[in-house]
Amino acid sequence: MRTIGVDEINDIALGASLLGAGGGGDPYIGRLTAMQAVKECGPVTLIEPDEVPDDAFIAPCAMMGAPTVMTEKGGGKDDFDRLFDLVEQYSGKKIYATMPMEAGGVNSMLPIAAAARRGIPLVDADGMGRAFPELQMVTFTIGGASATPLAYSDEKGNAGVMNNVSNKWTEDIARSITNIVGGQLMICLYTMSAKMCRDWGVSGIVTKSEQLGKAIRSIKEGLIDTTTEQRFLELTGGCRLFSGKVIDVLRETRGAFNFGKVVLEGIGSDKQHEAYVEYQNENLQCVVDGETLATAPDLICLVDHDTYIPVPNEAVKYGKRVLVVGLPCAPQWRSEAGLELVGPRYFGIDTEYIPVEERSKRKGE
Amino acid sequence: MRTIGVDEINDIALGASLLGAGGGGDPYIGRLTAMQAVKECGPVTLIEPDEVPDDAFIAPCAMMGAPTVMTEKGGGKDDFDRLFDLVEQYSGKKIYATMPMEAGGVNSMLPIAAAARRGIPLVDADGMGRAFPELQMVTFTIGGASATPLAYSDEKGNAGVMNNVSNKWTEDIARSITNIVGGQLMICLYTMSAKMCRDWGVSGIVTKSEQLGKAIRSIKEGLIDTTTEQRFLELTGGCRLFSGKVIDVLRETRGAFNFGKVVLEGIGSDKQHEAYVEYQNENLQCVVDGETLATAPDLICLVDHDTYIPVPNEAVKYGKRVLVVGLPCAPQWRSEAGLELVGPRYFGIDTEYIPVEERSKRKGE
Repeated sequence: MRTIGVDEINDIALGASLLGAGGGGDPYIGRLTAMQAVKECGPVTLIEPDEVPDDAFIAPCAMMGAPTVMTEKGGGKDDFDRLFDLVEQYSGKKIYATMPMEAGGVNSMLPIAAAARRGIPLVDADGMGRAFPELQMVTFTIGGASATPLAYSDEKGNAGVMNNVSNKWTEDIARSITNIVGGQLMICLYTMSAKMCRDWGVSGIVTKSEQLGKAIRSIKEGLIDTTTEQRFLELTGGCRLFSGKVIDVLRETRGAFNFGKVVLEGIGSDKQHEAYVEYQNENLQCVVDGETLATAPDLICLVDHDTYIPVPNEAVKYGKRVLVVGLPCAPQWRSEAGLELVGPRYFGIDTEYIPVEERSKRKGE
Repeated sequence: MRTIGVDEINDIALGASLLGAGGGGDPYIGRLTAMQAVKECGPVTLIEPDEVPDDAFIAPCAMMGAPTVMTEKGGGKDDFDRLFDLVEQYSGKKIYATMPMEAGGVNSMLPIAAAARRGIPLVDADGMGRAFPELQMVTFTIGGASATPLAYSDEKGNAGVMNNVSNKWTEDIARSITNIVGGQLMICLYTMSAKMCRDWGVSGIVTKSEQLGKAIRSIKEGLIDTTTEQRFLELTGGCRLFSGKVIDVLRETRGAFNFGKVVLEGIGSDKQHEAYVEYQNENLQCVVDGETLATAPDLICLVDHDTYIPVPNEAVKYGKRVLVVGLPCAPQWRSEAGLELVGPRYFGIDTEYIPVEERSKRKGE
């Protein structure tokens, strides 16, 4: 048990934006929201899954929708408070703590804001260990948990509670509502017991985000003078995939998702080579010279070539120089059930899943 | 107070299918559903709005979606029972009675089935006095009532409760769910007090449907030997618009609505003339020789030229001979607020609303 204040939020936001793997929303907006809440309501208590009482009821929260929309719409102060009320009213249970569902610029931050405003602890776990585009893509689905009752609200005041027969149906129905109300929905979902959280959650993700943020900051601040790229890879546990300059970006917002492709021309040791990264909110596949070097569920992250600051897909621009890094996903995703939910084939990428550390070792063989 | 059994259901279904004005769903399916419920659970008590106790809570119910879908999917036995439970759980109030929201082949019948299975009375009123394609198009909207809390469920078991900031938002959000789950949603909406029902409902609509059904049956059974067309118009209070043979039908299912146009070639006294009727689930406009003879909110009904049985739009076929009749709508719709909700311009028809009895009198002037 420890507290999260303004400094921690800065690091968590930075680290989580790396784990967002190109998606997960704008870390700037997310950070502002969390900081404002902590400044107004005081720091948040972070507890480990083991510290959650056995009979406690955890209500995770998130924003659903295309990350680009939040940049315009923002979020209300008491959105989640109303959702928590709705969940308590519907379930008849008192919410003990909240929790993120994914790591990313926005969805790692909103639960901190929600915890601060509600005066409840935040559990140091999530259901992805990264960001993913769809609701059913959480480790809790593998564990048999239901995403419902899911409570939702939009910024106009439309709200509801749903109970569905599968987590995919919850994705489809909640997505259709997200679409019709303008691309952004605040949700409270996967309400769960302490046991479910301990058994299936990705534990320690908030702390991991914070450590990653600190590591990136240390490089950015020039505290480390060894070969920085190598140092960055060591600190993040990442595999180097490519370094290049953005020469084309294709973007499409479709069905409340951001789809796109980033095309890179090699620089430095990758000169004369080329690569592309495809995404659906989050990056899904990295191909270098026609060879796939990484796929979901492993994390494919673009970071600024000079500062090592993660670059979310909405900030990718022509001419930007980036390093593409692959991070191994949480081990839960490498099971058969995990790959069925978030493996390359689910996203329409016709290849077997091979862990990024193996793919990148084999490169060019 | 009286009871509704199998005979009454037959007449109500027939009359309501006239009031469906081309939409409102298949009267065959609707009738079967109501009859089965009454056979299994006994007849339903029909009460007038004045007989509802002042403190009673009324929970109307309906099917939302393109009428053509129900012909394939049908409905479950206890769909509404689960919805009523959900509404009671959510509102904390006991449901005293149910009520139809519209008159039509399906939505006049499902509340009878729901009342029989729940063992509660049916109130002799609705919110349209006919059928209309969208949720907010009820007289209760003019009276300031909210469509929410709205409870919904699909045939797979997905269910929810929503609370929205306007009845149009409820239409849009519920419609998007209807779309994504396959075009059909069972809903319980516009829960209301006895006072709201008395002040704004279209009272006596079930009885009116029954009387219309009896009238049509009496003609069909040849009990009346005066000029039948004239007799039919007297019994239904309708204006004769056109008699013709269907020479073209254009159909499109879009956004969970049935859109279309029926083109007619004159027969009998209308020989050498032509007409068309356009619809969005329900008929919206009847144009004869380029002159608009009727528009929403008045009812434009196609009936079989020989039997006077109403012809729903899904049953319109090339070669079918029909009489097109215009029936005056409920007076609530002729107010400014009423025409804003369901007048011709709302449906994209660029003309002033003029009551059908005036338009048809002026014909050809």
